[in-house]
Amino acid sequence: MTDRTETRARLLDGKAAAARIQETLRPRVERFTQAAGRPPGLGIVLAGDDPASAVYVRKKVGLGQAFGLRVDLERLSAAAGVDAVLAIVARLNASPDHDGILVQSPLPPGMGADAEQRVVEAIDPAKDVDGLTATSVGRLVQKRPGLVSCTPAGVIRMLEDEGIAIAGRHAVVVGRSDIVGKPMAMLLLHRDATVTMAHSRTPDLEAVCRRADILVAAVGRPGLIRTGHVRPGAVVIDVGVNRVTDAAVVAGLFPEGHRRLEVFRQNGSVLVGDVHPEVEAVAGALTPVPGGVGPLTVTMLMANTLQAAEAAR
Amino acid sequence: MTDRTETRARLLDGKAAAARIQETLRPRVERFTQAAGRPPGLGIVLAGDDPASAVYVRKKVGLGQAFGLRVDLERLSAAAGVDAVLAIVARLNASPDHDGILVQSPLPPGMGADAEQRVVEAIDPAKDVDGLTATSVGRLVQKRPGLVSCTPAGVIRMLEDEGIAIAGRHAVVVGRSDIVGKPMAMLLLHRDATVTMAHSRTPDLEAVCRRADILVAAVGRPGLIRTGHVRPGAVVIDVGVNRVTDAAVVAGLFPEGHRRLEVFRQNGSVLVGDVHPEVEAVAGALTPVPGGVGPLTVTMLMANTLQAAEAAR
Repeated sequence: MTDRTETRARLLDGKAAAARIQETLRPRVERFTQAAGRPPGLGIVLAGDDPASAVYVRKKVGLGQAFGLRVDLERLSAAAGVDAVLAIVARLNASPDHDGILVQSPLPPGMGADAEQRVVEAIDPAKDVDGLTATSVGRLVQKRPGLVSCTPAGVIRMLEDEGIAIAGRHAVVVGRSDIVGKPMAMLLLHRDATVTMAHSRTPDLEAVCRRADILVAAVGRPGLIRTGHVRPGAVVIDVGVNRVTDAAVVAGLFPEGHRRLEVFRQNGSVLVGDVHPEVEAVAGALTPVPGGVGPLTVTMLMANTLQAAEAAR
Repeated sequence: MTDRTETRARLLDGKAAAARIQETLRPRVERFTQAAGRPPGLGIVLAGDDPASAVYVRKKVGLGQAFGLRVDLERLSAAAGVDAVLAIVARLNASPDHDGILVQSPLPPGMGADAEQRVVEAIDPAKDVDGLTATSVGRLVQKRPGLVSCTPAGVIRMLEDEGIAIAGRHAVVVGRSDIVGKPMAMLLLHRDATVTMAHSRTPDLEAVCRRADILVAAVGRPGLIRTGHVRPGAVVIDVGVNRVTDAAVVAGLFPEGHRRLEVFRQNGSVLVGDVHPEVEAVAGALTPVPGGVGPLTVTMLMANTLQAAEAAR
C-alpha cells in the first residue's frame, strides 16, 4: 500500500511566493522614495458597501501601507452617481502624488450598466495598475511594456518562482474574463506555451482540460474542476475565490473530518476555489484556496504601482 | 471505386464571398457620400519599393476606387526617414477628408527597428483601419466596438457567409502574429469557439491541429499543414500567401500535371499558402490560395474605412 500523502499534489504556497517577490520589490520602493522625495502612491476608489469589496480593499490598503506605499482610499456611498467616480479618477489622474489608480469592482448597480467601462477608460493608462484600459490590454497582447492585470501577472510570477516551465507546455485556461482569462492566455502564449481558451460553452470540458500540462481555472464556480478534468501530474492553478454558504454544496466538496468543513461550521461560510479539493490527489502541483493565487494578486498590485511610479520619473 | 472528386474539400470561394459582402456595403457607401457630401476617404502610405507591397497597395487602391471610396496614395522613397511617415500620418489624422489610414508594412529597414510601432501608435485609433493600435487591439479583446484587423475579420465574415458554425467548435489558430493570429483567436473566442493558439514552438503540432474543427493557418511557411494535421472533414482556412521561386519546393507541393505547376513554369514563381495542396483530399472545406482569404482581406479594408467614416459623422 502506498502512503497516501506521497501521491498528493505539491501545494504552491502563495504567501511564501508573495513574500519572496516583496523582498525583491522593497529596495526599489526605498530607492524610489528617496529619489522622488515621496513614496509611490496608489489611489483606490471604493463605491457602495459590497462586503467582499470592503474585505479586498482593506487588504490592499493594509499591504500597500506595510510596504511603504502611500495608499489613499476614496469612499463613495452606493447612492453616488458615476460622475462622482469620474471626478475622483480625474483628480487622481492629475495628481503628482498618485502613480496608480484602482477602482474596486463591482460599482453599485445604480450607476448604470456601462459605468465600469466608462470609469476604466477614464483612467490614465500610465496609472492603470489593474491593466484594464484598452491601451493596457492592447500593449499586453502586442507584448509591449505596460501594466498587466494583477492576477494573471501573479500566476506567471508564481510559476517562475516555483521553477515550473511554461515554454513548450500545453496550457488550458478555463474562463475568458477580461481581468483574468484573456490576459492569462496571452501571458502564457508569450512564454511559448500552446494555449487553449475554454469556457462555459466548451463541449466536453473534461477532455479539453485533461490535455493541459498547466490548467488555470478562472470561472467563479466552486469545485467545477474535478479529478476527471486533470491529467495526473498536471500543474493546476486555482484562481477562483467563491464564498459558499450552502451546506449541501460544502458537503459535496469536503469529506467528513476535513479541516475546511470545520471552518464552515464555525463561520457559516467557507472560501472555495474553482478546483474541487479531490484534485489534490491527482495534480502534480496545486494552488490552495485561500493562500494560493490571492496573495500574489495583491503583491502584483504593489509591483504595478511601483512600476508605474518608476516609469513616470 | 469512389469518384475521387467526391472526397475533395469544398473550396471556399473568397472572390464570391467578397462580392456578396461588397454588395451589402455599396448602398452604405452611397448613403454616406450623399449625406456627407464626400465619399469615405482612405489614406495609404507606401514607403520604399518592396515589390510585394506595391502589388498589395495597387489592389487596395483599385478596389477602393471601384468601390466609390476616395483613396489617396502617399509614396515615400526607401531613403525617407520615419519622421516623414509620421508627418504624413499627422496630416491624415487631422484631415476631414480621410476616415481611414493605412501604412503599408514593412517599412524600409533604414527607418529603424521601432519604426513600425512608432508609426502605428501615431495613428488616431478612430482611423486605424488595420486595427493595429494598442487601443484597437484592447477594444477587440474586450469585445467592444472598434476597428478589427482586416484578415481575421474577413475570415469570420467568410465563415458566416458560408454558414459554417463557430460556437461550440474547437478552433486551432497556428501562428501568433499581432495582425492575424492573435486577433483571429479572439474573434473566434467571442463567437464561443474553444480556441487553441499554436505556433512554431508547439510540440507535436500535428496532434494539436488534428483536434480542430476549424483550423486557421497563419504562419507564412509554404505547405506546412499536411494531411497529418487535418481531421477528415475539418474546415481549413489558409491565411498564408507565400511566393515560392524554388523549383524543388514547388515539386514537393504539386504533383506532375497540376495546373499550379504550369503557372510556376510560366512565371518562375507561384503563390502558395501555408496549407499543402494534398489537404484538399482530407478537409471538409478549404480556402484556396490565391482566391480564398485574400479577397476578403481587401474587402474588409473597405468595410473598415466605411465603418470609420460612419462612426465619425
